[in-house]
Amino acid sequence: TTSYRITLLPGDGIGPEIMAVARQLLDAVSSSHGFSLVYDVQPMGGVAIDATGEPLPNSTLEACKTADAVLLAAIGSPQYDSLPREQRPESGLLGLRSALGLFANLRPVKIIPALIDASTLKREVIEGVDLMVVRELTGGVYFGTPKGRVEAEGRVRAFNTMAYFDDEIDRIAKVAFELAVARSGRLCSVDKANVLDVSQLWRDQVTAMAADYPAVELSHMYVDNAAMQLVRNPRQFDVLLTSNLFGDILSDEAAMLSGSIGMLPSASLGSSGPGLFEPIHGSAPDIARQDKANPMAMVLSAAMMLRVGLQQDAAATALETAVDRVLAAGYRTGDLMSEGCTQLGCRAMGEQLLAA
Amino acid sequence: TTSYRITLLPGDGIGPEIMAVARQLLDAVSSSHGFSLVYDVQPMGGVAIDATGEPLPNSTLEACKTADAVLLAAIGSPQYDSLPREQRPESGLLGLRSALGLFANLRPVKIIPALIDASTLKREVIEGVDLMVVRELTGGVYFGTPKGRVEAEGRVRAFNTMAYFDDEIDRIAKVAFELAVARSGRLCSVDKANVLDVSQLWRDQVTAMAADYPAVELSHMYVDNAAMQLVRNPRQFDVLLTSNLFGDILSDEAAMLSGSIGMLPSASLGSSGPGLFEPIHGSAPDIARQDKANPMAMVLSAAMMLRVGLQQDAAATALETAVDRVLAAGYRTGDLMSEGCTQLGCRAMGEQLLAA
Ligand SMILES: CC(C)[C@H](C(=O)O)[C@@H](O)C(=O)O
Ligand SMILES: CC(C)[C@H](C(=O)O)[C@@H](O)C(=O)O
Repeated sequence: TTSYRITLLPGDGIGPEIMAVARQLLDAVSSSHGFSLVYDVQPMGGVAIDATGEPLPNSTLEACKTADAVLLAAIGSPQYDSLPREQRPESGLLGLRSALGLFANLRPVKIIPALIDASTLKREVIEGVDLMVVRELTGGVYFGTPKGRVEAEGRVRAFNTMAYFDDEIDRIAKVAFELAVARSGRLCSVDKANVLDVSQLWRDQVTAMAADYPAVELSHMYVDNAAMQLVRNPRQFDVLLTSNLFGDILSDEAAMLSGSIGMLPSASLGSSGPGLFEPIHGSAPDIARQDKANPMAMVLSAAMMLRVGLQQDAAATALETAVDRVLAAGYRTGDLMSEGCTQLGCRAMGEQLLAA
Repeated sequence: TTSYRITLLPGDGIGPEIMAVARQLLDAVSSSHGFSLVYDVQPMGGVAIDATGEPLPNSTLEACKTADAVLLAAIGSPQYDSLPREQRPESGLLGLRSALGLFANLRPVKIIPALIDASTLKREVIEGVDLMVVRELTGGVYFGTPKGRVEAEGRVRAFNTMAYFDDEIDRIAKVAFELAVARSGRLCSVDKANVLDVSQLWRDQVTAMAADYPAVELSHMYVDNAAMQLVRNPRQFDVLLTSNLFGDILSDEAAMLSGSIGMLPSASLGSSGPGLFEPIHGSAPDIARQDKANPMAMVLSAAMMLRVGLQQDAAATALETAVDRVLAAGYRTGDLMSEGCTQLGCRAMGEQLLAA
């Protein structure tokens, strides 16, 4: 039987709890779908800092590089905020993205009918929302140089560089165009080309690529307007293509439209090598180790890993169906609780998912 | 009697129509409140490009510099999008902000009870929202150098510099702290200090200044989380302090929460010299010259000019009261229309405001 090596990064906060649920479910669907998964659990983030002094130890990075896919739960905790930035959990994640060449971050936002009332937006505005943010993940102001802090003539100046190469734009644009073809054919590229040189190059490259995709209806939107339009009428969007920083902001805004960020997975992919799959929510240190966490975004991230990373479609569907069934049966974790539903903790939710 | 020189910049699209309404109202309140306004109408934006080839002619800039206040309607039109960026309407606005030293952009977002149903958010989420975005306006990635586009070894690289000096951060932070003192005492500073050096300096400076304002409760939030929290629970915010780019994005998102961006004014202030007052909405070229525009954000911008720029509080209140009364009487422009209300065009709305 086919066997895949999966590096698991449980991380911090609620990470280990939700990872435990995902692992149970992965075991179940792999054996019922005729493949096997071999796990390698590695420290990343705060736990790695505690153990080794570094957020991304070399041994963890090596284990990720040689895996077939990497599954991450969540990292970070306020206790590390006072460390120099390079030693914080977040830097481990940035280092991992960069070292694995994960330039394409896919963040689907799909409204789940059973959870529509969890949104702060009116039902008629978000009903049927089904969009995909395609965020560039290894360039832009996150990684641009020069950067730093200098003192001169009694003033301090800190700076970063927001930069893209044409080929960096092309490879992420291609991902977005291909996705648009496979979905509704609508692609909206977000930039700030009325102000930024780097956005003008972005717009030029994306516009040029449109010639190769006559079936895709391409539009361009300024980032401030996109932040507005997501609130005004999110249904207008299908695939949203963005740079690293704009994607960070807009994908979180888009996720919150659903009202249930505890339900949203993501994938980060390179041109070859293993992908990284993780829920978009954080490590929620305030509810860690209390059996309160919602494991469903983690389970859906595992499903995304099966489908996108390992081409195990049927097993992925099995996980997604389990989530749908459990919701339809009225089971909810605390973050999603509403009248008439049954509230479960993280472990009990895992049991229900397994049964489904 | 006191007399003020006001430079009017009607600009493009619906600009001239809404400016005509504001001017009528300014005439009325100035004569009833014992001061006079002398107007100097100048071309800026697309109209200036058509007339002179430049979005911000020197004569316009001089007229702004020597005025007591500048009132701008709106600029921009798709027809200029193909021009090089420095020759577009937007560059005129950036040049004006920079030349007048308007580093502090104040964007209040207050839910008007009569218009609460215009929002895409649920009533219980936005009821009572009353926040103020304080956006730095003359620094950051909008103005940082080096910037540009270079070709080397067959690749094109475009780049901007996101930079702040410590004293640039201090002066905008001071504006925000003072506003927080005058309002609820809560200040939230937004940055991306977990990734960006420039944001770390921002956070350090703002944190240091908090010692001077013991009555202010300061918090820090990452920009992606802020984009989420504005959707999740906008009432948690009072004063939001942001850099130029983050403020551009978040203030538009915050504005759209109200559902009626045709109602929102803004002020841009320097440390001395005239302020610039303008609605946050754009030039809406699609409805220009059709007598459909909503002039109320323009009128409220004139009110902000009277209060903040000219210290004519009573006259400002008169304009704001007129807007409240007209809404309470059920008059609406097309953008705000709902059942049971009376729809008016731009001119007729101006008449009603005048009567009120
Ligand atoms: C933790 C942080 C560095 C990260 C980012 O900004 O990319 C996070 O916000 C995300 O979106 O994955
Ligand atoms: C027109 C544009 C340059 C401007 C900006 O980005 O500052 C606008 O979006 C605004 O917010 O006033």
